[in-house]
Order: sequence, then C-alpha cells, then structure tokens
Amino acid sequence: MLSPNQIVEMMMEKDAFSSWMGINIEKIELGSSVISCEVKEEMLNGFQILHGGISYSLSDSALAFASNSYGNKCVSIETSISHTRPAKLGDILIATCKEIHRGRSIGIYEVSIKNQDDKLISIFKGTVNISLEEW
Amino acid sequence: MLSPNQIVEMMMEKDAFSSWMGINIEKIELGSSVISCEVKEEMLNGFQILHGGISYSLSDSALAFASNSYGNKCVSIETSISHTRPAKLGDILIATCKEIHRGRSIGIYEVSIKNQDDKLISIFKGTVNISLEEW
Amino acid sequence: MLSPNQIVEMMMEKDAFSSWMGINIEKIELGSSVISCEVKEEMLNGFQILHGGISYSLSDSALAFASNSYGNKCVSIETSISHTRPAKLGDILIATCKEIHRGRSIGIYEVSIKNQDDKLISIFKGTVNISLEEW
Amino acid sequence: MLSPNQIVEMMMEKDAFSSWMGINIEKIELGSSVISCEVKEEMLNGFQILHGGISYSLSDSALAFASNSYGNKCVSIETSISHTRPAKLGDILIATCKEIHRGRSIGIYEVSIKNQDDKLISIFKGTVNISLEEW
Repeated sequence: MLSPNQIVEMMMEKDAFSSWMGINIEKIELGSSVISCEVKEEMLNGFQILHGGISYSLSDSALAFASNSYGNKCVSIETSISHTRPAKLGDILIATCKEIHRGRSIGIYEVSIKNQDDKLISIFKGTVNISLEEW
Repeated sequence: MLSPNQIVEMMMEKDAFSSWMGINIEKIELGSSVISCEVKEEMLNGFQILHGGISYSLSDSALAFASNSYGNKCVSIETSISHTRPAKLGDILIATCKEIHRGRSIGIYEVSIKNQDDKLISIFKGTVNISLEEW
Repeated sequence: MLSPNQIVEMMMEKDAFSSWMGINIEKIELGSSVISCEVKEEMLNGFQILHGGISYSLSDSALAFASNSYGNKCVSIETSISHTRPAKLGDILIATCKEIHRGRSIGIYEVSIKNQDDKLISIFKGTVNISLEEW
Repeated sequence: MLSPNQIVEMMMEKDAFSSWMGINIEKIELGSSVISCEVKEEMLNGFQILHGGISYSLSDSALAFASNSYGNKCVSIETSISHTRPAKLGDILIATCKEIHRGRSIGIYEVSIKNQDDKLISIFKGTVNISLEEW
C-alpha cells in the first residue's frame, strides 16, 4: 500500500499546471495537506493583484492531495471559494487542507489560504466522491 | 459613459493571467459575456486532463466581464463550480455567462463552459457585490 | 416501472414536513418539477418576512422530486441557496426545478422560487448522487 | 450598546418559525453561537428521517445570531449546506456557528450540526453582508 506522500508524488509527477504554479509540498498526512507557492507576474489580473483562479487552483490541488491520501481515488464533485483579501506579486500563499467529514462515499474538505503574514486570502470548501479504485 | 466592450478592454489590458490563458472575447453585452480559450499543454493535471483551476479561472473572468458591463465596479463575494466532464489537450472551451439576478448591491451570475462539441464541461455560480465606484 | 408522478406521490405520502408546509404539486416531468406553497404565519422570522429555511425546504423538495423522477433513488450531496428578495405573509411561492446536468452518478439541478408577481425570491443549486437502487 | 445576548433576544422575539422549531439558545458570544432543538414528528420527510430543510433552518438561525452579535445588522448573501448523516425522531440537534472571516462589509461563518452522540449531521457555510445599520 502506498503512503500519502508516495501518492502525492505520483499525482504531482506530470502535473503540468501545478508545475507551472510552482507548488511546493509542505506536509502530507492522512486527510490533510499543506502546500504553497509564490505569486508571480503571470498570475496577476488587470488590477495587478492575484487572479482568483490561482487561489482556486492551489486550493483544488490541496484538496486532491488530502482526499486521495488514503489510497482510494477521489474526484471532486462540487467546490466553492470566497476571496477574503487580495494577494500581490511576491506574496507566499500557504494552503492548508483539513478534513471536515469522510463517509463511505463522500468526503468534505476545507482549504484556507494564508499569506506570509498569516492573513486569510481565501476560504474553499470541496466535496469529493470516494471511489473504490486504488492508487 | 463607457460601453460594455470598452470596459472589458480595460479589464483585459494588463491582465497577465488572462493573457497566459489565451482568452478570446467572443461577445459582451449588458449582464452577459461569451469568452473562449484553447486547452494547452501547461493547463493539464497529472491525469493529462484539464486542471479544474483553468475552468474556474475562465468562468471567473466571464463573471467579471458580465457583471462589470454596466459601468459599476463589481467584486466577487462567493463562487462555486462543478466539473461535469473532463476536457483534454486541444479542446476549445466556450464560457457563457448569464445574469440570474441583479439587485441594488448584489448580482448573481451563472457560467457554463462547453467544449467544441457543445458538451458541458463545468457549471459555475458567482455572487458579486456591486459597488458605487464607476469605470 | 413507475411514472414520475407515481414516484412523487410515494415521496409525498408520509412526508410530514412537506404536509406542514402545504406543498402543492403543480407539474412533474422527467428531470423537472414545479411545486408551490403559501407563506403562512408560522413561517415568518423576527423581521416578519419569510424565514430563509422555508425557501430552502421548498427548493430541496423540488430537487428531490425532479431528481428522483427517472426511477433511481437520488440523495442530495451539496446544496446552496441565495435569497434575492423577501417574501411576506400570504405570498404564493412557486418553485421550478430544472436539470442542468445528469451524468451516470451525479446530477445537478437549479431551483428558482418566484412569487405570485413573478419576482425572484431565491435561487438554489443542488447536486445529487444517483444510486442504482430503484423506486 | 446592546450585548450579543440582548440582540439575540430581540431577534428571537416574534420569530414564529424559530419558535415552531423549538430553538434553545445555548450560548451567544461575539461572532459565535450555539443553539439546539429536538427533532419532532412534523420535521420528518417521507423516509422518516429529518427533512434537510430543518437542518438548514437551524444553521441559518445560528448564522444570524452569530453574525448580528456585534451590533450591526447582517443579511445573508449566500449559504450552502451538506448533509452528512441522517437524524431521526427525538434526536437533539446542536448547531455551533463559528466565524471564519469578518471584514469590513463581508462575514463568513461555518455552522456544524451534531447530534446527542456528537456525530456530524450537516455542515453549513454562510456569507453575510455587514450593514452600517445598528440594532
């Protein structure tokens, strides 16, 4: 059986968009994950602040890593995000995913992104379907 | 007063991430928008399908264009997305944003993304705050 | 095989809370439903307007009827609602549920509630899991 | 200036639907609330389990009490709920609302409902608009 870290390694390998974002894996445990990246020029929108799509993408990756850590493949069903504070060029985004509920077929996770000053950038909720297929 | 198209032009200008995605503006009207982009290699995840963050980003941009078209600056408060079908390299994504409700201070919009075969890729709902500040 | 109307009849039978709300079935078809009820005194909150929980409950019932109409039992996974306009004592609430997507195991539905003057009271999105179990 | 408890008392007074539900106020503090009720016969759906609309209504009331506790009137903009486990006749529902974010004009809250055995029944997220009007 694969460990949570081995599963995430397999997921990250060949994940072109996570590479493009420059995602760092900080910590992976059963049902939780901490990942980070730095805001770079190409991630900005017309207001010169971080495009909300990047916060979503980082949160979605944190969700994928946390929910798949048990060894069963999980697919996201529904996700929502609120952007609470703008992030700017050079900021470090730290996404922490924790498990709210894990039933037989459904898992619910929350991801908060904070910046280097521990200020909340966004809050994300994701619901996944837990399949029987294993990594 | 600026037209919907002039506002979107101003928003797109200097929007580095929308440029990176290669967004095309297909049609902008009061309260609605149609935009598109092509799935390129760097947008794929570890399963070699489109990263959900790109569908979100495209939807979020469609929301911004439609909600700002009246001339008042709008900021997204809460957004949610469901991914209904995978998209793959070379697919054309067409995002259509329509208005569900526009009150005095709150607007609600829905964005559906379809591919070149008119198949639904994702469905997105966004709530924005309508400010008094004008473009 | 049961018809959509027969399934809804079975669901309504013994549904104490829907009885309490006074739900009327207006129209049931494959993947869609129209139901209604009248705002009564006990449904009001402290501001003397309709408690948001009633709009949610009516929407949730409309979702159940539309998604179960095919004959497979469906269970709601995630639901969201935005309240766009207050309803008051004596108003007639008409909830219309339409299908946005129906895949193999996941269905997505939208319910809008309008009042007797065709004004939007709330907009609801529901995601259900489609089981193999039949009615 | 009114205390959080005084504000909640004013909100509960004349709130007919909360009375019908039999809501008990367990604890109110700045930005948080704990309230409870018992599942009674009229709250059941056709499967003889708690109608999801009651969990939503209880969560929505917990949100209202927590978000209004500072003295500024708050109105819910968007809410979502996932039902994780069925509740049955006679169960005690304990709803706990905590603050995730409170900015100048937007507040985000999470409400979890647990039963008498500390099992999670539902998880709710609510976004409110913080007005300048005071209680």
